[in-house]
Amino acid sequence: MHAIGVDIGGTKIAAGVVDEDGTILAKTRRDTQPDDAGSIDRAIAEVYAELREGYEIGAIGVAAAGFVAADRSGVLFAPNIAWRDYPLRDNVRALIGSDVPVVVENDANAAGWAEFRYGAAKDVEDMLLLTVGTGLGGAIVVNNRLVRGAWGVAAEVGHMRVVPGGHYCGCGHEGCWEQYSSGSALVRDAQAAVVAQPDRATRLLELAGGDAARLTGPDVTKAAQEGDPLAIDLLAELGRWIGEGSASVAALLDPALIVIGGGVGAAGDLLLAPARKAFAEQLSARGHRPEAAIVLAAMGNDAGIVGAADLARA
Amino acid sequence: MHAIGVDIGGTKIAAGVVDEDGTILAKTRRDTQPDDAGSIDRAIAEVYAELREGYEIGAIGVAAAGFVAADRSGVLFAPNIAWRDYPLRDNVRALIGSDVPVVVENDANAAGWAEFRYGAAKDVEDMLLLTVGTGLGGAIVVNNRLVRGAWGVAAEVGHMRVVPGGHYCGCGHEGCWEQYSSGSALVRDAQAAVVAQPDRATRLLELAGGDAARLTGPDVTKAAQEGDPLAIDLLAELGRWIGEGSASVAALLDPALIVIGGGVGAAGDLLLAPARKAFAEQLSARGHRPEAAIVLAAMGNDAGIVGAADLARA
Amino acid sequence: MHAIGVDIGGTKIAAGVVDEDGTILAKTRRDTQPDDAGSIDRAIAEVYAELREGYEIGAIGVAAAGFVAADRSGVLFAPNIAWRDYPLRDNVRALIGSDVPVVVENDANAAGWAEFRYGAAKDVEDMLLLTVGTGLGGAIVVNNRLVRGAWGVAAEVGHMRVVPGGHYCGCGHEGCWEQYSSGSALVRDAQAAVVAQPDRATRLLELAGGDAARLTGPDVTKAAQEGDPLAIDLLAELGRWIGEGSASVAALLDPALIVIGGGVGAAGDLLLAPARKAFAEQLSARGHRPEAAIVLAAMGNDAGIVGAADLARA
Amino acid sequence: MHAIGVDIGGTKIAAGVVDEDGTILAKTRRDTQPDDAGSIDRAIAEVYAELREGYEIGAIGVAAAGFVAADRSGVLFAPNIAWRDYPLRDNVRALIGSDVPVVVENDANAAGWAEFRYGAAKDVEDMLLLTVGTGLGGAIVVNNRLVRGAWGVAAEVGHMRVVPGGHYCGCGHEGCWEQYSSGSALVRDAQAAVVAQPDRATRLLELAGGDAARLTGPDVTKAAQEGDPLAIDLLAELGRWIGEGSASVAALLDPALIVIGGGVGAAGDLLLAPARKAFAEQLSARGHRPEAAIVLAAMGNDAGIVGAADLARA
Repeated sequence: MHAIGVDIGGTKIAAGVVDEDGTILAKTRRDTQPDDAGSIDRAIAEVYAELREGYEIGAIGVAAAGFVAADRSGVLFAPNIAWRDYPLRDNVRALIGSDVPVVVENDANAAGWAEFRYGAAKDVEDMLLLTVGTGLGGAIVVNNRLVRGAWGVAAEVGHMRVVPGGHYCGCGHEGCWEQYSSGSALVRDAQAAVVAQPDRATRLLELAGGDAARLTGPDVTKAAQEGDPLAIDLLAELGRWIGEGSASVAALLDPALIVIGGGVGAAGDLLLAPARKAFAEQLSARGHRPEAAIVLAAMGNDAGIVGAADLARA
Repeated sequence: MHAIGVDIGGTKIAAGVVDEDGTILAKTRRDTQPDDAGSIDRAIAEVYAELREGYEIGAIGVAAAGFVAADRSGVLFAPNIAWRDYPLRDNVRALIGSDVPVVVENDANAAGWAEFRYGAAKDVEDMLLLTVGTGLGGAIVVNNRLVRGAWGVAAEVGHMRVVPGGHYCGCGHEGCWEQYSSGSALVRDAQAAVVAQPDRATRLLELAGGDAARLTGPDVTKAAQEGDPLAIDLLAELGRWIGEGSASVAALLDPALIVIGGGVGAAGDLLLAPARKAFAEQLSARGHRPEAAIVLAAMGNDAGIVGAADLARA
Repeated sequence: MHAIGVDIGGTKIAAGVVDEDGTILAKTRRDTQPDDAGSIDRAIAEVYAELREGYEIGAIGVAAAGFVAADRSGVLFAPNIAWRDYPLRDNVRALIGSDVPVVVENDANAAGWAEFRYGAAKDVEDMLLLTVGTGLGGAIVVNNRLVRGAWGVAAEVGHMRVVPGGHYCGCGHEGCWEQYSSGSALVRDAQAAVVAQPDRATRLLELAGGDAARLTGPDVTKAAQEGDPLAIDLLAELGRWIGEGSASVAALLDPALIVIGGGVGAAGDLLLAPARKAFAEQLSARGHRPEAAIVLAAMGNDAGIVGAADLARA
Repeated sequence: MHAIGVDIGGTKIAAGVVDEDGTILAKTRRDTQPDDAGSIDRAIAEVYAELREGYEIGAIGVAAAGFVAADRSGVLFAPNIAWRDYPLRDNVRALIGSDVPVVVENDANAAGWAEFRYGAAKDVEDMLLLTVGTGLGGAIVVNNRLVRGAWGVAAEVGHMRVVPGGHYCGCGHEGCWEQYSSGSALVRDAQAAVVAQPDRATRLLELAGGDAARLTGPDVTKAAQEGDPLAIDLLAELGRWIGEGSASVAALLDPALIVIGGGVGAAGDLLLAPARKAFAEQLSARGHRPEAAIVLAAMGNDAGIVGAADLARA
C-alpha cells in the first residue's frame, strides 16, 4: 500500500508518496504560515490532491513538531506553530472529503521510525535515535515498537536532566540534556570560549566575521576540520555529553544501536569518536554485555516523510 | 495454567504455585548456599517435586538477582551467587527429568511484572517500578510488555547517572542514581550527618546505640515518625532524588504510573510526599500532559514468585 | 583628616566629605555619561571644588565598578563605563590642579571596607562581604586588611565556581556563584518557575502584570512576604546558595562574620534563615570551631562613599 | 636568631635548628606514640635538650596536623593523634623548665610558610600552597602574612565544595575538593576504572600484583610515565581538578603563585600540564589580569621544620 508522508516545517511542508520499501515515488511541497494553522490544513489537502493523481493512496501520515494527541488525531501543543488542541486529522479529512486514514505523529518519532524501518537501524529491534539540531530530539524503539508513552509524550530525550543546577532550559528546568547536546549548546559554548579564552578563539572569531554573536555550528565544524584546537575541544565536549547521556539511556533501555541525526553529524569522527569513548566509559555493566554502536543516521531530510507515511500505514 | 514461581535469595529459595489470577495456591522454601550453584539447582528440583504433588504445573519461572541471558535460559553474571554463564534451565531440567518450560528472569523484572499484572499497576499499560532497597533496582513496562533490551540488561535504573562527578558506585562509575535513591544512600547520609551536624543527630545516634556505624534505615524512619527534624530531612532528601530521577525517566518513557517497592516504603508519606513534589517540579512539559502517579507497591514479598511464574507462563 | 569619597554609578556620581568616624558631613552629586569617561573626570573635579569650600580635604577616594590598577591610580577595565586602562587619578589631579592624594578603589571593596570600619563588621578582624545585587560582588578582609590580591582583582567572589557544568555566566564560564546568588538569578528562577510550575506561579505572574518577562526581585520578595509558597521557595533557594557558597569561602578564610549587602536583603529572614541553615550544614569542621554569623549590611547606600574616603586616607 | 622547628608525624618527630636564612644547621628525630600525647611532649623536650647543646635557641616552633588554638598554644583537635584541647606549649615548657617561646602551628601552614619565605614562593606576596597527599591541605599567604582566620582554621582548602552532591568526604559533607584532588582520589579513581574499564586497566592491575585493592598512587604515576593511556587520563583528571579548584581560589584571592606540594608532584608535567590548562580555562577575568603560575614546591620534606621554626621566630 502506498501512503503519503507530510513533513510540516515552520514555513513550508514537504510531502511524498512512499511505497512499502520506504522509497519515495513522488515529492512536492507548499509554503505555509506558522501563525495560520488553516494554511497548513489547506496545504496538506493540496499536496494530497496533487499526489493522488498518479498513485493510489491508502493513508496519510503527518509529522509535526509538538505534543501529539495520544490517539494521533491532532496536536495538543506546538512550540512554533499556532496549534493548541488542534484537530488536524478531522480538518484535513473535511477539506479532502474523504475518510482516508490520517495519522499525526511527532516529527522526531517519524524520523526515528524511518531509520528503524529503512535506515541505519533496520537490522535491530531496540534503538535510540538522537536528533542533534537546534535542540535535542529523539525517538525510542523497544521490542520493534515505537515508544509513545502513556500520554504520547515519550522520547523527550532532550529533557532528561544531566546536571543538577545546570544550564537553564526553555522548558523552565535546569540541566536538561538538550542544553549540553545540541547545536545551540555548541554555539553557546563557542561564544563563551571567545570571552573566556580569547587567545584560543581567534580562528573562530575570524570565521564569524569578528562578531561572536554570529558564530554558527558549521563555523565550529569548519575550524575543527582545519585543526583548530579550541574547535576540536568544543566538538569533543559536545560528543562527550552525547555519549554520557546515551549511557544513562542505555542503563534504562539497553538499545542495540544509537543513531545520531541532525546537522552536527557533519562533524563526523570529530564528534563521534569522543561520543563513543564517553559512552563506553560510562556504560554500566561494561564487560558483561555487548556495547551498542553509535552511528550516523542514513535517511537524511526525507526521514520525516518516509517515517510518517509508514506509521500511517501500520 | 498453573506455574511455579521460584524466588532465589542469598541463602534460601522461596517457591509457590501461582494460578492465572496471580494467587499463590501453595508455598514452600529451601535453604541454599550462595557459593554452591548446584545447591540451588537441587533446591529448585526439590520444590518442584514437592509442589507438583498437588497441582498440575505448566511452567517454572525463576527470579534471580543478576544479568540474565537474553534467551532467559540462565544467568550471565550474579553479584552475590556463584553464577557465571550458568545454564540454570538445562541443569534444572536434567535434575527433574522433564521438559517442562523453565524460564529465568531478573528478580526486579519479575517483581515489576507482578505489580503490572496483579498489583499497583494492573490498570496501566506503561509503568516504572523502582525497588528502593540496599540498592536501586527496577522494571519497565512499555506497551504492556516488559522492556528487556537488546541484550537482556535493560532497566538497570540504578545506574542512570544523576550527578556528574557524584558519589562513587560499586559499578565503577560516579553519580549513579542508586547512590542517591537507596537504603544504603539513606544510611550513609545519616552517618555523614552525625559527623557534619552532630547537634542535630542526637536522636539518630541514640537509636544506633551511640555508634553511627550501626545506624539503619529503619532507625531513620523511626526517628522521622517521632518528628526528629534531621531524620525528616534525610527521608525528604531521599524522596527528592527518587522524584527527580523519575522525572528524567518520564522524559524518556512517559509512564502512566511509578511504583515504589522495597523496604523504604515503610516511611510512607515522609518519603512519598517529597518524591511527588520533586517529580512534579522536574517533570518536563508539565501542564501539557497528565502527571504519572507515584504509589507504593502492593504485592509485598510475594512479587518475585508471582511475577516469575506469570512470565514463565506467558 | 577629612576625605572625600566619590561613588561612581552608571549615570551619576555621589560624593561626600567623610570624617575619621565615618560620618558624612556633606553630600553632593552630579550627572555623568557612562560612554564619556571625561564627563566623569570633570564631575569629580566639580564635586571636589564644591565640597572643599567648607572642609579641609586630605584625600579623595573614588569607588568604581571595574578592575582597578594594582597601584590604584586608575581602572584597567570597567563593564559599564568607557574605561580601558584609564588614568583616572592623573586626569582628576590635572583638572583640579592639586596633588591631593586620589585613590581609586573597586566599589565592592569600598563598600566592604565601610562595613568593616564603621558598619556591621566593625568589631571583627576577618570578614566576608557579599553584595547580592544584579550580580554578586564582594570584599574580603583578612587580618584587618583588605585583600586586593597580587594584581588587584581579588574578591571576585561571584566567579567562584559552585556547579561544574552549571549556568552560563557573562564571564564565559559555567556555574559561577553569581549565577545562583544574585538578584538576576532570583528573577530567572522565578521566570523559569512560571514555565515549569504554572499552577504555583499565579501570584507571581499577577504581580508582574501577567508578563513573566517583567518579573522583578521585589515582586518575589513581596509575594513571599504575603506567604506565597513558590516565592518563599525561591528566596529559600537563593539563601541556600548564599549559605553554601559562604561555607566554601569559610573553609578557605575562616571569617568571623559574613555581611550581606545589596537589594535582596529586604527579604530579611525569608532569605537569611535559609542562608544560615545552609551555611551551618555545609561548614567544615563544625563542632570544632565557632560559626561565623551571617548578618545584613548596616551602611546602606553610603557605604561606597564612606569606604572610598577611608581607604584614600589610610 | 636560631629557632628549632619540630615536625610531628604519626609515629615520629623530626626536628632541626634553623637559622634566619632558612638553613637547617642540625637535625634529629625521635619515635613517638600517636595514642600517648605525653610521649610527644617528652620527645620535644628531648630534641630541644639535644639541639640546644650546639646552638643558642630563641624559639621553638611545632608543626602539627590538626586544628591549632587561635593563640597557637596548643591543639584543639587532631585526627590522628590523641590531642583534644591539648596544652602542648605549657606541657613542653614545664618539661624543659624554660620560658623559651613555644609556638604551635598547623603543619600545612608551616610548610606553606617555608615555601613562602625560602622556597618556590619567596619572590611573591600572595600565594596559595596545595599539599596534594593522602588528603588535600593548604596554606594561604595574603599581603605577606599567613591567613589563619578568625579562629585559626583557615586554609582548609580541601573542604571547599567543588561538586554539589559529589563524593562523600570524611568530614561528613559531599563534594569536597579533597575528594577530587588528592592521592586518595587518584587511587580510588584508578580502582573504579579497573571495574568500569577493565580492558584499559590491564597495566595498572599488573602493577598492583593483580589486586586492585593494592593499587597505589606511585603505580599510576609509573604507568603514566610508561605511556599507559588510562594512567595518563587519571593523572590528567587529577590535574584538571587541581587547576579548576585553584581557579575558584584565585577568584577570591588573586594569588601571584600556586605551589603544589605533596607526593603526587612526582608525576611532573603529566599532572602539571593539565592543571595549568584547566586553571587557565577556568580563571575569571582572563585577559584582564596576569595568570598565576603553578609550580612545584621546592622545600621537600624539610618544609615543616623550616616553616615552624621561622613562624616561631616571627
